[in-house]
Amino acid sequence: MIRIGIIGATGYAGGELVRLLLGHKNAQIKWYGSRSYIDRKYAEVYQNMFRLVEDVCRDDDLRQLAQEVDVIFTATPQGFLASVLDADILSKVKVVDLSADYRISDVAVYEKWYGIEHRSPQLIGEAVYGLCELHREAVRGARLVANPGCYPTCSILSVYPLLKEGLIDPSTVVIDAKSGVSGAGRGAKTANLFCEVNENIKAYGVTNHRHTPEIEEQLSCAAGEPVVVSFTPHLVPMNRGILVTAYASLKGRTGPEGGIVFPTEEQVRAAYEKYYQKEFFVRFLAPGVCPETRWVEGSNFVDINVKVDPRTRRVIMMGAMDNLVKGAAGQAVQNMNLMFGEAEEEGLRSAPVFP
Amino acid sequence: MIRIGIIGATGYAGGELVRLLLGHKNAQIKWYGSRSYIDRKYAEVYQNMFRLVEDVCRDDDLRQLAQEVDVIFTATPQGFLASVLDADILSKVKVVDLSADYRISDVAVYEKWYGIEHRSPQLIGEAVYGLCELHREAVRGARLVANPGCYPTCSILSVYPLLKEGLIDPSTVVIDAKSGVSGAGRGAKTANLFCEVNENIKAYGVTNHRHTPEIEEQLSCAAGEPVVVSFTPHLVPMNRGILVTAYASLKGRTGPEGGIVFPTEEQVRAAYEKYYQKEFFVRFLAPGVCPETRWVEGSNFVDINVKVDPRTRRVIMMGAMDNLVKGAAGQAVQNMNLMFGEAEEEGLRSAPVFP
Amino acid sequence: MIRIGIIGATGYAGGELVRLLLGHKNAQIKWYGSRSYIDRKYAEVYQNMFRLVEDVCRDDDLRQLAQEVDVIFTATPQGFLASVLDADILSKVKVVDLSADYRISDVAVYEKWYGIEHRSPQLIGEAVYGLCELHREAVRGARLVANPGCYPTCSILSVYPLLKEGLIDPSTVVIDAKSGVSGAGRGAKTANLFCEVNENIKAYGVTNHRHTPEIEEQLSCAAGEPVVVSFTPHLVPMNRGILVTAYASLKGRTGPEGGIVFPTEEQVRAAYEKYYQKEFFVRFLAPGVCPETRWVEGSNFVDINVKVDPRTRRVIMMGAMDNLVKGAAGQAVQNMNLMFGEAEEEGLRSAPVFP
Amino acid sequence: MIRIGIIGATGYAGGELVRLLLGHKNAQIKWYGSRSYIDRKYAEVYQNMFRLVEDVCRDDDLRQLAQEVDVIFTATPQGFLASVLDADILSKVKVVDLSADYRISDVAVYEKWYGIEHRSPQLIGEAVYGLCELHREAVRGARLVANPGCYPTCSILSVYPLLKEGLIDPSTVVIDAKSGVSGAGRGAKTANLFCEVNENIKAYGVTNHRHTPEIEEQLSCAAGEPVVVSFTPHLVPMNRGILVTAYASLKGRTGPEGGIVFPTEEQVRAAYEKYYQKEFFVRFLAPGVCPETRWVEGSNFVDINVKVDPRTRRVIMMGAMDNLVKGAAGQAVQNMNLMFGEAEEEGLRSAPVFP
Repeated sequence: MIRIGIIGATGYAGGELVRLLLGHKNAQIKWYGSRSYIDRKYAEVYQNMFRLVEDVCRDDDLRQLAQEVDVIFTATPQGFLASVLDADILSKVKVVDLSADYRISDVAVYEKWYGIEHRSPQLIGEAVYGLCELHREAVRGARLVANPGCYPTCSILSVYPLLKEGLIDPSTVVIDAKSGVSGAGRGAKTANLFCEVNENIKAYGVTNHRHTPEIEEQLSCAAGEPVVVSFTPHLVPMNRGILVTAYASLKGRTGPEGGIVFPTEEQVRAAYEKYYQKEFFVRFLAPGVCPETRWVEGSNFVDINVKVDPRTRRVIMMGAMDNLVKGAAGQAVQNMNLMFGEAEEEGLRSAPVFP
Repeated sequence: MIRIGIIGATGYAGGELVRLLLGHKNAQIKWYGSRSYIDRKYAEVYQNMFRLVEDVCRDDDLRQLAQEVDVIFTATPQGFLASVLDADILSKVKVVDLSADYRISDVAVYEKWYGIEHRSPQLIGEAVYGLCELHREAVRGARLVANPGCYPTCSILSVYPLLKEGLIDPSTVVIDAKSGVSGAGRGAKTANLFCEVNENIKAYGVTNHRHTPEIEEQLSCAAGEPVVVSFTPHLVPMNRGILVTAYASLKGRTGPEGGIVFPTEEQVRAAYEKYYQKEFFVRFLAPGVCPETRWVEGSNFVDINVKVDPRTRRVIMMGAMDNLVKGAAGQAVQNMNLMFGEAEEEGLRSAPVFP
Repeated sequence: MIRIGIIGATGYAGGELVRLLLGHKNAQIKWYGSRSYIDRKYAEVYQNMFRLVEDVCRDDDLRQLAQEVDVIFTATPQGFLASVLDADILSKVKVVDLSADYRISDVAVYEKWYGIEHRSPQLIGEAVYGLCELHREAVRGARLVANPGCYPTCSILSVYPLLKEGLIDPSTVVIDAKSGVSGAGRGAKTANLFCEVNENIKAYGVTNHRHTPEIEEQLSCAAGEPVVVSFTPHLVPMNRGILVTAYASLKGRTGPEGGIVFPTEEQVRAAYEKYYQKEFFVRFLAPGVCPETRWVEGSNFVDINVKVDPRTRRVIMMGAMDNLVKGAAGQAVQNMNLMFGEAEEEGLRSAPVFP
Repeated sequence: MIRIGIIGATGYAGGELVRLLLGHKNAQIKWYGSRSYIDRKYAEVYQNMFRLVEDVCRDDDLRQLAQEVDVIFTATPQGFLASVLDADILSKVKVVDLSADYRISDVAVYEKWYGIEHRSPQLIGEAVYGLCELHREAVRGARLVANPGCYPTCSILSVYPLLKEGLIDPSTVVIDAKSGVSGAGRGAKTANLFCEVNENIKAYGVTNHRHTPEIEEQLSCAAGEPVVVSFTPHLVPMNRGILVTAYASLKGRTGPEGGIVFPTEEQVRAAYEKYYQKEFFVRFLAPGVCPETRWVEGSNFVDINVKVDPRTRRVIMMGAMDNLVKGAAGQAVQNMNLMFGEAEEEGLRSAPVFP
């Protein structure tokens, strides 16, 4: 039985961790950390857990926690984990960090985009970027996993095969992403009130959203050359879900008869099949079926599809997933499963909930 | 392994049956019946089941089905099952009917409220009303279970203890119910279009909703005298959930000193504890906590609470549940579990999904 | 041109006042009071007013304001106006108060339900309860109008004719009300975040909501005897709208042949026609049509209908309106029109917006 | 007084025409055409118009109508108007067509994208594309105006100034658009049911949406060279609103010192100021403010902003509007005002409704 501690258990991602881990055969939550609700019953904060969770919330004492559990999930604000984690703790406990603190290999890039100083840069090198489908083997051996951001997970998985196979021009990638409101967290801000968000759609973080360098690092790695993308997130009036619509120009090659030849729909689809055919959580859809967030809600699936547009010589890449599951808590559990030798799907087999 | 056939597998209740049964250890769906989508892959209709269900939809051949499965779930329009079911089929297979055909013991009442002729009234007597918390033992031995309606399940469970214990005046019961839109089904009607329902609330079926006699029959049985209720359903712009707010006057008794004495909050709460303390799926909340549909979404729980109002000498009874789970598919699975000697919670243990 | 000052111009009711007054032929807003946004452009807070309002927000200086305008609207927290208003100010300017400070004639009742001390009880007697359809003449001559609460407006108008005409038993009135989220205001509270409210319905303030005594005072006045009601508000995931579903037992009378006779549907409808036939803003619907909030959104209309249930000898009374218009800003403008001799509909003629 | 006939008065765009025209000083609707509801009271179909509209719905007799009114609005399915309009009708009455029949100058392009034969191609040449801000003078003199599509209106206005001024590379334009559900019309389709659309976002019509050639024709005209765009619409769970997020690469020019120089934020903003400064309905927002659909709801405004991204050398162009107003009925009224010499803003001055 894997003993688990959660720091930030009363945020939306923390709550989702609790929900998923309650259904995991070999996991037991030992510590519900929530600085805001210390000593209050967890099920009073999240009434859905009434009679399912009897524990009270506890403080965020990482060092104490390292003594009592096998793995710590940190669903905390940026900078928190970096400021408290050290080699001593890591020698006693594994950590899956749902914040961005260890996702970016270049500390200067992190500090520039996040606007804060990184307090434990010496640990960045050890951290493994926990996008399981790309870095499965590294995750298995990791002590510290940087759980990917929600937008990056969906964006990277949607675009990866075509960059990896060199079928698109890396300088033309535009990622237009749409997210449900739970991605904004549970903090009491006017901007996230029902009446401000409902019956509305808007872009935000235009040209400067913090997930941009995370996406670029992974895509650059795939392409084997620096990739700079336009990334624009939008807020959609729904609880859960992320949809990515990405655009790129097909890369032409000199054909057998000398003219420029562009990849066909078949070649493009074959690239996705190559990388995702054996992946349980990535569902590459049938031709013509657009991913929709409703079909993955509550599950760890990412639905992906692609369409070639001969008129514009672009390809449109689409991905849909649940931001709280594959985009946060589900992927964190998937990472835990890999780190502890569990079946990768354990605790994550539930079918999506519709409607 | 219980072999299962579903008639009406592509409606919302049918889809929820599929979702829940996929997570059931000892159940296997053998027949996805859907007259509208014969020969089409089930997962093309419900893309959430992509790669989880490979079957195609089949016709509604009850007789054929009876040869191949152990239990049939019928999630079909009123009158369908009554028109095809007979003793021969029932001798070969158990049936859990999610329609109203066998819920009402008096066929005249059924025909009056539903406006159709009942084609197999001889089977009504055998049917067990599958509100498990009230009729558990009868369900265990049943071949034909009438799965309760969504509003009745929530209404009856909310009011039952006080009528059973004689603490309220049966002639004063008012039930004001609110439902999400999935209760209206998947039929293509203008009235259920997004733009017609969104940003709106309305009452409907005022004084004549078909669930009224079903509620009254069960409550009369509890009270030991005829109970006539005011029942008003409302349509709320959300996918899932039913909330019941019920009102009744407390029944006064002559006190020790001759004056009229009314039940106290403690006595009222004790009645609920008496009937629900050991029920897994009925959660009687702590004092002062109002049931909310968000806390039960996706689960088979019913959250119930009650408040005495000394000013008006009324009691307000509240219940919240997921109309597609405890109000339809979940309760159907609970009934199946009882009928086949499975653990009552099997396939129904998932925690509610929030947000 | 009526010169107007608004205190609390950046709340939802304040914003709606601005919207409506911009369309009023003889009104001009001179003062956008908002303590939270002093010196900030109003249109930066409410971007819908970009290029329509050029003013900046100002402090809440009532005394100064009284010099500059003809009427002050106060859309402020309970207790604020009572603590600053005095006879001197009232001698210089008219006031329409959207808070509850002067709605209840008995200061003890106010202090009990609101839990605060009333700082200017000497002014309560002068205040007119601004439900125009009931107190039109008094409003015309008033200096201080207590603009009714949202729930009370809809509740009172729905029930009034039957109590006034003595057709229902005053001791049996149950009011089950449902409101959109804008009624909860624009304060940054976790409970009103999108993800907390969306896909959810709940009751709140059960047996103790502050609008109860306001409703009871007006209904008692109509009935000519004390009326005590059960009032239960609910929160519905939509921006605007209030729906009231009220229940009461018909009052029987000894008939010509000695038996007890109950009012008929026709008699009940006649009562509504009597009081509302000439009212522009109260639309008594055709038989069988249920009021829905979508049909009044953005307008000052209240849609009302009623249905007699011979089975239960109850009558179900329904009302729907926009909580920000007839339930707040619209009614405030209607009161202003009466106070200044304008056409009562001026600024309020827009048709409801659908969808 | 302009006498008006509406064909298709019971669709969402038709309903919005009625709402707006009721507030127009010099317009009077004489004919509520609706084939589906002939002889039924209009206010029974749209209860928001109860007591505001007393007329009954009538058939779609264009020839008869031409005798009785000054202008006909056709809010009808594609192909309808083309099949019934002729020179005789046009000699008697002006027509504003909200369908796509006369929007595209090349009939072959129309027939290819719409998949139907155009039955009156001889009239295409006379039709004026009614995007008032671009073709104001032509509209003034027109007998037949092709009212622009919702997506094209928002897309074209968002991108126009930069193509017109040659500041972006026409071969790089990507338009990612998001629409509320009312754009899908009032037809009873399963895909538009509340539960199918709510809590979901999806792309549709990927690479082949019919609004693509309409956008391309207008942008080509602006650029002075053929423009081919990637256009992807998405369905957002809200009633009203369109948001466009468009991307294009800045066009470099040889600078004074020989290197390539790209347009600056200031130059880009100046282009928008140049074209929109005097436009009442186009609000070019302050730097850094993203357009949001909530700020234009119910109004004829289009909110536009732009941001230069030096990292990618792209510019992100954003536009928000109400698809039923500026994207349909509002623009139709704006066109009518121009055609009849009315003030362009008449009937369209209402401030946006929020929340």
